[in-house]
Amino acid sequence: MVGVVLNIENGKREAASIKDLIDLTAADMGRVNKLILSKAGSDVEMIPEIANHLISSGGKRLRPMLTLASAQMFGYSGEGHVKLATSVEFMHTATLLHDDVVDESGMRRGKKTARMIWGNQASVLVGDFLLGQAFRMMVDVGSLEALDILSSAASIIAEGEVMQLAAAKNLETTEDEHFAVIKAKTAALFSAAAEVGPVIAQATRNDRAALRSYGMNLGLAFQLIDDALDYGGTSKDLGKNVGDDFREGKVTLPVILAYRRGTKAERTFWKRAIEDNVTDDAGLEKAIGLMTRHGAIADTIGRAGHFGEIARDALAPLEATPQKSALVDVIDFCISRVN
Amino acid sequence: MVGVVLNIENGKREAASIKDLIDLTAADMGRVNKLILSKAGSDVEMIPEIANHLISSGGKRLRPMLTLASAQMFGYSGEGHVKLATSVEFMHTATLLHDDVVDESGMRRGKKTARMIWGNQASVLVGDFLLGQAFRMMVDVGSLEALDILSSAASIIAEGEVMQLAAAKNLETTEDEHFAVIKAKTAALFSAAAEVGPVIAQATRNDRAALRSYGMNLGLAFQLIDDALDYGGTSKDLGKNVGDDFREGKVTLPVILAYRRGTKAERTFWKRAIEDNVTDDAGLEKAIGLMTRHGAIADTIGRAGHFGEIARDALAPLEATPQKSALVDVIDFCISRVN
Repeated sequence: MVGVVLNIENGKREAASIKDLIDLTAADMGRVNKLILSKAGSDVEMIPEIANHLISSGGKRLRPMLTLASAQMFGYSGEGHVKLATSVEFMHTATLLHDDVVDESGMRRGKKTARMIWGNQASVLVGDFLLGQAFRMMVDVGSLEALDILSSAASIIAEGEVMQLAAAKNLETTEDEHFAVIKAKTAALFSAAAEVGPVIAQATRNDRAALRSYGMNLGLAFQLIDDALDYGGTSKDLGKNVGDDFREGKVTLPVILAYRRGTKAERTFWKRAIEDNVTDDAGLEKAIGLMTRHGAIADTIGRAGHFGEIARDALAPLEATPQKSALVDVIDFCISRVN
Repeated sequence: MVGVVLNIENGKREAASIKDLIDLTAADMGRVNKLILSKAGSDVEMIPEIANHLISSGGKRLRPMLTLASAQMFGYSGEGHVKLATSVEFMHTATLLHDDVVDESGMRRGKKTARMIWGNQASVLVGDFLLGQAFRMMVDVGSLEALDILSSAASIIAEGEVMQLAAAKNLETTEDEHFAVIKAKTAALFSAAAEVGPVIAQATRNDRAALRSYGMNLGLAFQLIDDALDYGGTSKDLGKNVGDDFREGKVTLPVILAYRRGTKAERTFWKRAIEDNVTDDAGLEKAIGLMTRHGAIADTIGRAGHFGEIARDALAPLEATPQKSALVDVIDFCISRVN
């Protein structure tokens, strides 16, 4: 199946949204946002400056909302979910800071990246600081199980980033190898964010496994849609320019599929573009044309749909709650971003 | 007092050594070294390659030995100290990887830095991976107190590095400001490494405070001697060239003292050297000459001696054990490196 998965359970045909998730977590997110500001604070001025540059730059804060909703879903009543949600957002922010250095990115979410303003050095170090603060908050919660899940995710994310770096510009990357990369670099944090909720709520083993699987598959779908958007969305929607990945020579799934399905001449084009950095506007136009011809963008969205369905089925056995329904909406929302 | 503190307790006049520390921790260090290799392993080849480049490059592994000895000292009999010692070494290795990127260093311990061989990107990411692995091992030990101490140290180290970056090339840095930087970036890890030993051995509050203070002051002494060596040792002893800090325009204590005590003309020289990067061999020779004239190197060693004495007194009330005596030797060893 190719295309957009809508919330057919409720017969909705309107665009899926994360409104319910936002509403359910609004009060807790207020506390998360306060904690973010307080834990990004330091007498060393450059730290809050850089941290706030990213933190205030209008990300959706999807990951901390997953933690909050998944804790609420199992009746958690303490304060730990707020601290864990903040830790998750800090881990994500630290990753973005280091990613921008690694990718030599100029723009993120329509703003200059921290490295363009404060330099690579400060971006590396403030990322390290935020990661340290994330661990301190987790320790403060006191759940060794949650610590285990989140510290494992930290290793796996870094491992995924190195894997991506090692495979950089390799057009022969298989789809499976690519999935292994995005599973580690993106989906592992979604998975951990969703799993620590039931963990601190002392939910059953099955409930934890359900949320872990939901997060993992949602993360895969999210990343694939992101990669499709880079060749199909509009600059305004994205907060980044269409073709950013192309100009950076990134081997994402639309490229992998178009390359594998292409003629010999087309593969020569891809090699010049990705390996030799011939990525001008004419090249981008041609790339999108080839992807369209081979159904590479549509099939990337289709693969996202596949993972989205697994995420949905992961939650299926759970009792109906407003949180469960809101988490299902997130799947639809992620996938419908592409329209 | 200026000069070298020797182990006067035993009336020794020969050079202090860490032989006793090495002997006492030899069996445990064998397990640490195995764990290092195993936890730096990954199917992503670049990870063990880079990790082993640093790990095998002949560092003294002083920090993990501190953890092992300080756990032994209080009768600890489990396996946790081996894991925590390995975590400490990984935190240190991760910091070195990121430091070399931040400082744009070409050489470390007489070998090319990882960033010169594999690039800045891989160095940043493998550092992140090692930090993640460090946290996983700590979590595995299961002591929330040890986790609190080490995760706090991780934040503080990063904060110290940003502080140093913000103060880079600032010749007006006061001695106190400089001590705050090295306390955070170097001494915090020595302190944490020494404190987690009594913590997992469930020693008393006073014993923990003693080891924490010992580690902190030893770390300060260690860093100051390192900074003095950069203007006074020989290339062979250092594994780096004399004058590396000067060529990188680092404002270390010998520079701070020489600048503050200098004439107006001398300050102009320092400004040209540090701020405008006029750091050729003639400049280095002149710098060492000015430091000698103003006693800047000798007094840096003197300050190190001051912290070394505090470290010694921190241990003074503890029962006499082979570990205590070995830890005192470490102070003397650190300071006698300069001869």
